[in-house]
Amino acid sequence: MGEMIHLPRATFERLKMYRKALESVKKPFISSDEIAKFLEINPELVRKDLSYLKCQGKPRVGYDVEELRKELNDLFGVNSTTNMIIVGANDLARALVNQDFSKVGVKIVAVLDIESENVGKFIGEFSVREMDVLERVMRRFNVEIAALCISRDKAQATAEILIKNGIKAIWNFTGVHLELPSNVIVVDEDLTKSLLTIKHLLK
Amino acid sequence: MGEMIHLPRATFERLKMYRKALESVKKPFISSDEIAKFLEINPELVRKDLSYLKCQGKPRVGYDVEELRKELNDLFGVNSTTNMIIVGANDLARALVNQDFSKVGVKIVAVLDIESENVGKFIGEFSVREMDVLERVMRRFNVEIAALCISRDKAQATAEILIKNGIKAIWNFTGVHLELPSNVIVVDEDLTKSLLTIKHLLK
Repeated sequence: MGEMIHLPRATFERLKMYRKALESVKKPFISSDEIAKFLEINPELVRKDLSYLKCQGKPRVGYDVEELRKELNDLFGVNSTTNMIIVGANDLARALVNQDFSKVGVKIVAVLDIESENVGKFIGEFSVREMDVLERVMRRFNVEIAALCISRDKAQATAEILIKNGIKAIWNFTGVHLELPSNVIVVDEDLTKSLLTIKHLLK
Repeated sequence: MGEMIHLPRATFERLKMYRKALESVKKPFISSDEIAKFLEINPELVRKDLSYLKCQGKPRVGYDVEELRKELNDLFGVNSTTNMIIVGANDLARALVNQDFSKVGVKIVAVLDIESENVGKFIGEFSVREMDVLERVMRRFNVEIAALCISRDKAQATAEILIKNGIKAIWNFTGVHLELPSNVIVVDEDLTKSLLTIKHLLK
């Protein structure tokens, strides 16, 4: 828990980059100039972003890497583990179970599907389960996140079932704009966004 | 080509959302309030973002949907087709070939891999080719983008081979920070970013 820090959205997004950049840092101190150079962004911006944190840099020494790492990990809550299910047993689900999400404190605990012909198939180490077991899975694992990987036409209805069963956050890969109660966290993962950036830069 | 518009980064990212939201709009005019409501963001912000465009809203009528759509499509260059190869024949590659990127003007033309045991396997409709054919593929298809899906340890070396052969943009799924000439476009796709947002919001 801890106090909530109110961060500008752009700062929030960059703090994720700093957190990631620090992963590979081996020395005890780092300057804002070094972080800026590594990420190819403006050093002033780095200093401004980091000024939102409790961890402050020391003149001519820089930021204590361990301290900075800890504060950023706390900010994003990565030191505690949150359980996630994947709904939809397809290549995307396969790609997701191959990722190491433990470094951001997320653990995949089950793969479910609404298509009965997929039940019993294996996605990585997970035998695909039918949606009927959702209540049991929720009770057993205290699941908070569902990665929604099913087809567009079933997206809204399935999301509603997930919410009704206590899912608090949906990681939405369906490309559909979900209409859900405002207390539900929905994060849309849209791969075409990166391609739009690339297309724009290629012009 | 056309004139380059200098957009703040956050505006640029939101313009992608507006473009996507317009996909499902059936009526001829839309107001900034309607766009704002659909996306659950501040109407003032929508008006400010759209003020960067040539297409201007008319009082009490709103924005001409077709005109807005066209300008946004031009901005992101989605009306022309850009060819892309996938490098790395794995579940992620399988998930990518299943996506419809034609709506953003991107066409997958080949799947290559550095691992010889994958050559000849099928990823969707594509028979996986060895890296040796890269030069030929580049010549035949005028490829500009490479989606890099291989393992971390081979990422940098493979990216360098791609650049040497004329690839202009790398869509980087490896999680590795690539060190490449500054004229190369690198867009990192990091799925853990969305999870960090979710984790933060769940606190």
